[in-house]
Amino acid sequence: MSVEFSGGAEGPIDLFARFSLNQQTVKQWSLPELADGCARAGVRGVGLWRAPVQEYGVAAATQLVRDAGLAVTSLCRGGFFTASDPKERADALADNRAAIEEASALGTDTLVLVSGGLPPGSRDLYGARERVADALEELAPYAAEAGVRLAIEPLHPMYAADRCVVSTLAQALDLAERFPAERVGVVVDTYHLWWDDTIGSQIERAGSAGRIAAFQLADWVTPLPAGVLLGRGQLGDGAVDLRWFREQVDAAGYRGPIEVEIFNPSLWERPGAEVLAEVVERFTTHLVHIR
Amino acid sequence: MSVEFSGGAEGPIDLFARFSLNQQTVKQWSLPELADGCARAGVRGVGLWRAPVQEYGVAAATQLVRDAGLAVTSLCRGGFFTASDPKERADALADNRAAIEEASALGTDTLVLVSGGLPPGSRDLYGARERVADALEELAPYAAEAGVRLAIEPLHPMYAADRCVVSTLAQALDLAERFPAERVGVVVDTYHLWWDDTIGSQIERAGSAGRIAAFQLADWVTPLPAGVLLGRGQLGDGAVDLRWFREQVDAAGYRGPIEVEIFNPSLWERPGAEVLAEVVERFTTHLVHIR
Repeated sequence: MSVEFSGGAEGPIDLFARFSLNQQTVKQWSLPELADGCARAGVRGVGLWRAPVQEYGVAAATQLVRDAGLAVTSLCRGGFFTASDPKERADALADNRAAIEEASALGTDTLVLVSGGLPPGSRDLYGARERVADALEELAPYAAEAGVRLAIEPLHPMYAADRCVVSTLAQALDLAERFPAERVGVVVDTYHLWWDDTIGSQIERAGSAGRIAAFQLADWVTPLPAGVLLGRGQLGDGAVDLRWFREQVDAAGYRGPIEVEIFNPSLWERPGAEVLAEVVERFTTHLVHIR
Repeated sequence: MSVEFSGGAEGPIDLFARFSLNQQTVKQWSLPELADGCARAGVRGVGLWRAPVQEYGVAAATQLVRDAGLAVTSLCRGGFFTASDPKERADALADNRAAIEEASALGTDTLVLVSGGLPPGSRDLYGARERVADALEELAPYAAEAGVRLAIEPLHPMYAADRCVVSTLAQALDLAERFPAERVGVVVDTYHLWWDDTIGSQIERAGSAGRIAAFQLADWVTPLPAGVLLGRGQLGDGAVDLRWFREQVDAAGYRGPIEVEIFNPSLWERPGAEVLAEVVERFTTHLVHIR
């Protein structure tokens, strides 16, 4: 369903063909502005989020991106699987089935999952991770029928309590490997994984099994803001060796979209076209050019 | 040099004999207030920090804790070894030699090391960790002569860029194991390590080799404050299964001090004696009593 991205020996142009703009990077843009802005910049892929798509209407959003010739490289996000309360759990599964349908309608094969944190009062990380596995078991066949792959995203360990009990690529793969690779994959996001000295071997593990469902970029900058949600850095501004990550993911055989997903209010205050131009320039400088 | 802490089968009283109060938990207290408050509460161990000790005077602080019958269970902190500039590097080593002398004077055998972050503009985590190893190589013999063991503290991955490139107990052990166990150990701090699903086996690895130099407690609470330095939780207020950690460290053979180190302005606003009483009550509830 998604656009074919080029593989093989890649120069600057081919790699840019794999560039995708996650809409949270330019949150100031409406969906029509996003479609128009991407078309003007020659961007062929976008990552979408459920809330703005629902607000615009799933069918209308689908038509909009189709008319603009844009591929939807991923939909964020399903997940939040860790509730132990049966009603909350059933609600979460129903919401995830809706997310799968939305992904399918939008023509993307990738639904990004943020697993969820610890239920209130719980200290049982292991149990929470097992509930993630249980939810995957229920959802994976449903997703497969809809042509959608579930993509487990490990989030930085600073989110382990309140957002995502899956903190490393190794943990994400431990979960994903209980299922066929075409049904459950993982997300490699530089912001969440850059600090981990085992990440090279885990990317190889993910890639060799065809489990890399998405590759997302943001840089790590400090100091972190309160709540630590909106402090991601523009590419090149921080501590992450983005080119190293790209080379690792390349070497592991991944040939799919490379999505830029930066949550940062300082980017949202500027004109979207200016931000996108800067992102493309940074992408070229920090990922494409040979050192 | 440090007080003998009881081992073997432990009831509530024996475990409390291993309790130590890190002075940052009651930062509102001067050193004399700390010594007096601990004596009144029956606390026998304290963890000290260099800046307040230097301000009071190392010799005077040594006399003060000795007169109060307090054992200094650790001194925080040496480290910040990651500079690549030769002058900065030499300054850091000189400062660490001073820290070793201060630890020796205070009668503690444990100098806690916070390794340091990435130098400005660098993205080379591997290189920074190797410079930590180089510094350990220079300092370990000097420390051993002074009767002080260097204790590498892995800090939470959210500090990897700006404070400590050693983020996991596995990484800390990889560094420590290049040296004899009596010269270089590791710190197990629940706040930094609770999220890691390999922590049980790494504690076993550390304990079986006699490398656990310190065991420190704080809970993980959210939302994190801006800068993420002062958001540690009172024991029992957060996501960490403290008793599980205590059992793991016990099973790994550790019989040393258990130090409570909470950086939280809401504790500093209250009377120190009230905070200490609460810490002791939480320690008893969450670590000692059988589930």
